[in-house]
Amino acid sequence: MTQERKKQMKIVLQMVSGYGGEFRSWRLPEAKADAYTDMDLYVEMAQLAEKGKIHALFMADTPALTNHLETESPMHSMDPLIAMTAVARATKRIGLVGTFSTTFNEAYNLARHLKTLDVISHGRVGWNAVTTSTSAAAANFGQHLASRQERYGRAHEFIEAVQGLWRSWGEGVYLHDKETGQFADMGQIRPIHYQGTYIQTSGPLPIPPSEQGQPPIFQAGPSPDGIHLAGRFASGVYANPFTIEEAKAYRQMLRAEAEKNGRQADEINVFTGFMFTIADSKEEALARRRQLLEFDQDELAQRLAYLGAMVGLNFQGIDPYQPLPQSWLQLARANPGDPRSPRALEVLKEGYSPIDTLAHGVINYHPVVVGTATDVADFLQEWFEAGASDGFSIVPDLAHDGIKAFVEQVVPLLQDRGLFHQDYEGQTLREHLDLPYQYGRQE
Amino acid sequence: MTQERKKQMKIVLQMVSGYGGEFRSWRLPEAKADAYTDMDLYVEMAQLAEKGKIHALFMADTPALTNHLETESPMHSMDPLIAMTAVARATKRIGLVGTFSTTFNEAYNLARHLKTLDVISHGRVGWNAVTTSTSAAAANFGQHLASRQERYGRAHEFIEAVQGLWRSWGEGVYLHDKETGQFADMGQIRPIHYQGTYIQTSGPLPIPPSEQGQPPIFQAGPSPDGIHLAGRFASGVYANPFTIEEAKAYRQMLRAEAEKNGRQADEINVFTGFMFTIADSKEEALARRRQLLEFDQDELAQRLAYLGAMVGLNFQGIDPYQPLPQSWLQLARANPGDPRSPRALEVLKEGYSPIDTLAHGVINYHPVVVGTATDVADFLQEWFEAGASDGFSIVPDLAHDGIKAFVEQVVPLLQDRGLFHQDYEGQTLREHLDLPYQYGRQE
Repeated sequence: MTQERKKQMKIVLQMVSGYGGEFRSWRLPEAKADAYTDMDLYVEMAQLAEKGKIHALFMADTPALTNHLETESPMHSMDPLIAMTAVARATKRIGLVGTFSTTFNEAYNLARHLKTLDVISHGRVGWNAVTTSTSAAAANFGQHLASRQERYGRAHEFIEAVQGLWRSWGEGVYLHDKETGQFADMGQIRPIHYQGTYIQTSGPLPIPPSEQGQPPIFQAGPSPDGIHLAGRFASGVYANPFTIEEAKAYRQMLRAEAEKNGRQADEINVFTGFMFTIADSKEEALARRRQLLEFDQDELAQRLAYLGAMVGLNFQGIDPYQPLPQSWLQLARANPGDPRSPRALEVLKEGYSPIDTLAHGVINYHPVVVGTATDVADFLQEWFEAGASDGFSIVPDLAHDGIKAFVEQVVPLLQDRGLFHQDYEGQTLREHLDLPYQYGRQE
Repeated sequence: MTQERKKQMKIVLQMVSGYGGEFRSWRLPEAKADAYTDMDLYVEMAQLAEKGKIHALFMADTPALTNHLETESPMHSMDPLIAMTAVARATKRIGLVGTFSTTFNEAYNLARHLKTLDVISHGRVGWNAVTTSTSAAAANFGQHLASRQERYGRAHEFIEAVQGLWRSWGEGVYLHDKETGQFADMGQIRPIHYQGTYIQTSGPLPIPPSEQGQPPIFQAGPSPDGIHLAGRFASGVYANPFTIEEAKAYRQMLRAEAEKNGRQADEINVFTGFMFTIADSKEEALARRRQLLEFDQDELAQRLAYLGAMVGLNFQGIDPYQPLPQSWLQLARANPGDPRSPRALEVLKEGYSPIDTLAHGVINYHPVVVGTATDVADFLQEWFEAGASDGFSIVPDLAHDGIKAFVEQVVPLLQDRGLFHQDYEGQTLREHLDLPYQYGRQE
């Protein structure tokens, strides 16, 4: 891990269920409305991301229906494992990071899936290991949601067991030597007999190493338990801060936790979630966001009311398409209960109407840039140079044209500024992310 | 299901772990020794099978290491789900039948995997639902092997739950209508609240139907419990008889069981396992099989001893490369303890040496034809016309040249004789196998 490498940001892409981060973007003219079931399109988008040297695809997941499909597209792909496999077969360099629950999988099955995928992608797989805290998911597995303590207890064991199974086929013992007749050295393919409180598995898992040894672990979720899990295992962390200060503090905490667990701070890459709408002008970008808002008038009314509450004002009866009068803005106060409030107030004070303020994405679940490619590049540069993040998990409003805009317009700007690599540094995800080869457990 | 259709045999192909059915065939000059990890090769072989109009690939599986890799290639692919996905993306018509355990999977996860794969393959997936009776597999899941009664109790519930989840997204409600803004009709996407003794799952599984509705079920395993499971659910059965009489009786039993469960007998297709070595002459084919036997002298000695026991003779000290003297053959008796014994004795009596008798595959786990393409076609025709089987699950000794030989030499013979289709009858696996569209549970 050289200093040189550390100076450039790493970027992973979220296509969500194939549309992007805005759950009504499927209605835009640019959208392919049945993208959810269209694997050809999914693969094409991944190929475009690879052309833009995006480090990896990142797929969130919860094994349950988690939003209302009457008007919204799904929050997750039909199946991340199958999407990753399809993309792996049609790309050469881009990494593939999938979210798989430690609560709602069997360790042996998941170890097998991910190692196989790592072998056939020639070392490009990462595993975002999450405990899953959704009751609807638990119900799909005939369970009530276990306590946080139990879920994290199981998560630690689950990762240990998976990494143990990954190592149960020794390095360098896949011989397939026609002369001697030795296919493998069975002395180095051994059961692990893992006996935890939550997980027991014998092994061996009969799969040889990939080019990167085994997939790196990612983590998401800012609880103390989550940070501890990341400190022990994670090479990448998916983070959700809304401000640079929050992001810096979180990153420092993660780096300290890695060191506390006997690892190098630089072994953890923090990827901050970030959403964008790119157009030729800011006004054009805002117009697209207004359209997304207007697709659902009921929800828009709710969002306006919430925006009012964020800045201490009652928006009942106002014309939301007009900027607020100065007298109102002087009374407005950012609500400390929502970290996004200062940004909302700032936009209102810039003279944007409540609708246009919402169109800035001020109540999205990530920071949002709505504007030109330069606006997006500027944002990423500011956060990166402030030490807020090692990289970004970018989420286009609509993937079907958003990836193209990012790859063709933002990536060259970042490259010109020396902030983003000109090409993949190697063949494997570990090489892309400047992580050491790893095979088996780290401890 | 027309009579016309029923007159032709259906063929599925087993590539086993990528080499074929002989676990030392990886040492043959024609073999690619690292085929186990070579997904490109696996996909190429599937494409060749599709060129030959093979109805489907069939992948057996046990989630455990089940043979000795010191000298043998593995019994199973690294991961059938990932292999099926890779093949699905690179082919258009061939079906994909994978074996997945009802004991060592979560119903929700497997329902999701298989339905997703069915959607992206446009309706080409089948599921061979097995209970798995291997202790080593149980140990990989922290379990002791459950009783047969429990395993089959769980299997019935597991299939019911999976089919319930498959139907939990209503037909025709994936609307994605940009004009009305309705993405799906949530009134028709409903939990199933399945509450069994072994399986509980709520759903819904948020995935729309494939072109065939949902994957057909396959079954394997000749116990009364297995036959009952097939009678309730199976559209295809993988069978292991050694003689035509045995096969006919088994097929009749399955057909009767389907009717007992309120289904049409023709809804069950029996696929008999069958292995082959094809060469330009029988002697050449036998030479290849001798080479396979000679790769392991210790095992060869054991096999010779077993062959002796099968025909009531002691082979200690004989020259196994010489035919047995007439005096010995007159004393020989087929051992009733092994259904393969009459065939072994028959070959010895034809004047083949013990080695060449073994080279005929008389103690393989399926009937074997070692000879020319015509010999193979004759065998399949005899069994098919005798009513022994609706089709065959063919296993080449080495897939790397065996599929080519079958597709290029045997398939045209079968087609010329009117025994095998000239092209796929439709787009989906159900169409290929003459099965009705199905969505949800049959009962």
